[in-house]
Amino acid sequence: MPALNTDLYELTMAAGYFMSGKANDIATFELSVRRLPDRRNFLIAAGLQQALEYLCELRFEQDELDYIRSLKQFANAPPEFFDYLDKLRFEGDVFAVPEGTPVFAGEPLLIVRAPLIQAQLIETYLLSTLAFQTTIASKAVRCVMAAKGRSIVEFGSRRAHSPGAGPLAGRAAYLAGCAGTSNAEAGMRFDIPVFGTAAHSWTMSFADEEESFRQLQKLLGEETVYLIDTYDTIEGVRLAARLGRPLWGVRLDSGDLAADGREVRRILDEAGLKNARIMATNDLNEKRIADLLAAGAPIDAFGVGTELATSADAPALSAVYKMVELQVGESRSYTAKYSPDKVTLPGAKQIYRYADYDLLTLYNECNQEFQGDPLLRPMLAKGVRLERYPSLSDLRRHAAKAVAALPPDLLSLDHAAAYQAEISERLQSLANSVRTSHQMVAS
Amino acid sequence: MPALNTDLYELTMAAGYFMSGKANDIATFELSVRRLPDRRNFLIAAGLQQALEYLCELRFEQDELDYIRSLKQFANAPPEFFDYLDKLRFEGDVFAVPEGTPVFAGEPLLIVRAPLIQAQLIETYLLSTLAFQTTIASKAVRCVMAAKGRSIVEFGSRRAHSPGAGPLAGRAAYLAGCAGTSNAEAGMRFDIPVFGTAAHSWTMSFADEEESFRQLQKLLGEETVYLIDTYDTIEGVRLAARLGRPLWGVRLDSGDLAADGREVRRILDEAGLKNARIMATNDLNEKRIADLLAAGAPIDAFGVGTELATSADAPALSAVYKMVELQVGESRSYTAKYSPDKVTLPGAKQIYRYADYDLLTLYNECNQEFQGDPLLRPMLAKGVRLERYPSLSDLRRHAAKAVAALPPDLLSLDHAAAYQAEISERLQSLANSVRTSHQMVAS
Repeated sequence: MPALNTDLYELTMAAGYFMSGKANDIATFELSVRRLPDRRNFLIAAGLQQALEYLCELRFEQDELDYIRSLKQFANAPPEFFDYLDKLRFEGDVFAVPEGTPVFAGEPLLIVRAPLIQAQLIETYLLSTLAFQTTIASKAVRCVMAAKGRSIVEFGSRRAHSPGAGPLAGRAAYLAGCAGTSNAEAGMRFDIPVFGTAAHSWTMSFADEEESFRQLQKLLGEETVYLIDTYDTIEGVRLAARLGRPLWGVRLDSGDLAADGREVRRILDEAGLKNARIMATNDLNEKRIADLLAAGAPIDAFGVGTELATSADAPALSAVYKMVELQVGESRSYTAKYSPDKVTLPGAKQIYRYADYDLLTLYNECNQEFQGDPLLRPMLAKGVRLERYPSLSDLRRHAAKAVAALPPDLLSLDHAAAYQAEISERLQSLANSVRTSHQMVAS
Repeated sequence: MPALNTDLYELTMAAGYFMSGKANDIATFELSVRRLPDRRNFLIAAGLQQALEYLCELRFEQDELDYIRSLKQFANAPPEFFDYLDKLRFEGDVFAVPEGTPVFAGEPLLIVRAPLIQAQLIETYLLSTLAFQTTIASKAVRCVMAAKGRSIVEFGSRRAHSPGAGPLAGRAAYLAGCAGTSNAEAGMRFDIPVFGTAAHSWTMSFADEEESFRQLQKLLGEETVYLIDTYDTIEGVRLAARLGRPLWGVRLDSGDLAADGREVRRILDEAGLKNARIMATNDLNEKRIADLLAAGAPIDAFGVGTELATSADAPALSAVYKMVELQVGESRSYTAKYSPDKVTLPGAKQIYRYADYDLLTLYNECNQEFQGDPLLRPMLAKGVRLERYPSLSDLRRHAAKAVAALPPDLLSLDHAAAYQAEISERLQSLANSVRTSHQMVAS
């Protein structure tokens, strides 16, 4: 695993910690999202499996060490520091919210407790892994809600942010309730149903549309989906209706999807193809899907590409990874940050979910009043997996159930009243005392 | 290289082409961007090197072939098709606009001429490679323009769309004129200057801010950048000023960057640290950079993270890969698509750049009037590299020069008048005749 795929300052801090005798301090970091994007009432936690795989396989290659050694920023670092990096493995404890769980602003998705250098080094990779898949899953669940039981297929690999992002977008979308993905690698790696039949270029590469349709049917049989808009949508569907069974249905990729959809439905029905389905694609998102269905468009499945694979209306989360505790020898201190608009709460936390609110407590806070299961669970102990990772299908079922249990106003596509985690008395009291002690230092 | 990292329909089409005897047809595809995003007056072509590496290394692994064979969509595909995939290598010709070149809507960034199955299969990977880096480079150049000669460093790996996207974002940003990146892997892989010193957690992990600053100085010497806002910005800069040389400067990451910047400058100057620089970070973008400089903020360098690594205001391009020619035996036909709002022009094209417009011609169109060098150049012949790929520094110099040569109104951050490529007479005449022939078929 590419340990060098991190921000340089994680490495300069590592060298600095090593030089100042802090390599064996034990730090606790929390990964959370500062604020929800305007158009998200909740997030779906995703990406944990890839994050844990990274942690279990973390190590520096020789060429990476040589590169670090060559940088001017490390001119003063002692040779022992590079030996330390060479032997570095992740030996920490990790607690996390299971993938598929709805989460809110300020709630830890993941807690790391590890030797300071290890805990710091992994920040960049953990953030880009968890924040990206969480971004996509949180967009996908909105498309799924908008479709009201019709299928959504993730079609966005070509517009994903680099080829590596495509399969991961497919994974996150499936976790959040999509029926599958167009990305074949995602299908193989993550055991996700894959969809796709033919593009416009298929139609264009035959002498005429009819020949292209006939050849497609030969391969796909009852999986055949005719893309009917290459030259003229209505001519296209008439041809599809004439060729008849076997077919899955037709795909519309341009024009007025509601009006054309109705006409296409009528032509298919008149040809006795009542079971032939209509799939729609073309720059769709949750809003357009909801509008199409509200307008009575007879569409049975939606392919959502660009908007889903980039979460185009909210392409980034304010995900942060902040130190909350530090143990130096036998002495444990709680840490927090007080920069304007960026205040963090000290101490490792736990989340309890109630019918209409969440309660943030200290991780080890014991209280008879805290009912139900805590959301954060142990995942790694001293760098080792505690149990077999659940299958993606199991996580997908968990997601569907956990989303359905949310207060109904959060399930609207429109902005709902802020759902802010409440804070336990002991956590608030710790935050106050840490802040006071820093103010004493500062004054 | 992961040949399976593609949309499933590329594979079903491959099987269909194989079964219908079209494996040896020669197709020409063009990759272009349909429309510029609202806030882009031009794009910077990027990602070609990674696209060519993919093409030269393309092959299916055994587990990928087994997976494809297992899918119901391939139940009717003959065994010979899988042998074909097993032996598949990319053997086509590729023409492309050099990385760093400004491009506009409808202009081909890349042309592929290859056996139909090969040309089709690579669509998804090529689009996600070229469109992503082009997206980031096109955002980065705006930040660079806004900074008016001050340095921009790409700091966005943690917010990039998956860990694989981070180093590529760093590459594209550097190509477009950024001074470097925080991503250490990008530094090693692409020979890009890397930047970064310490985070808030560094400050928080020491007993007090002074100790944290002293320890940082021990490692970094004159590269030291004090992050001064962990507890209180003004206290932080006073401490930095008291510790004095050696230092590079200080970093502000919260609050009112203009007002705090002025106060910080005053304190540094009074301490005789006139050469100490001020770097600003915190959700910056080209607009905020321009506003800060317009307000006279004494900031010397900007770190731009989320907005740059996700191109947050325009996170996707309408990049498409369309068939423009098809040769079946000795007969060549020109292809185009006439779906509403998605019309494409037939025929492989060339771009000529003049002082205030571009001219799109047919690739092999010869005309005394076409002056200057054409933008598209041969890159691969029968799957083999034609020359050593230029260094990223050379491409970066090319980008700076090519951007500076654009009409001045395009260099504004504000929306400029549309710059639409003109179309040569022969190209227009071909488009008309292809359209007419399809209308004859359709009517």
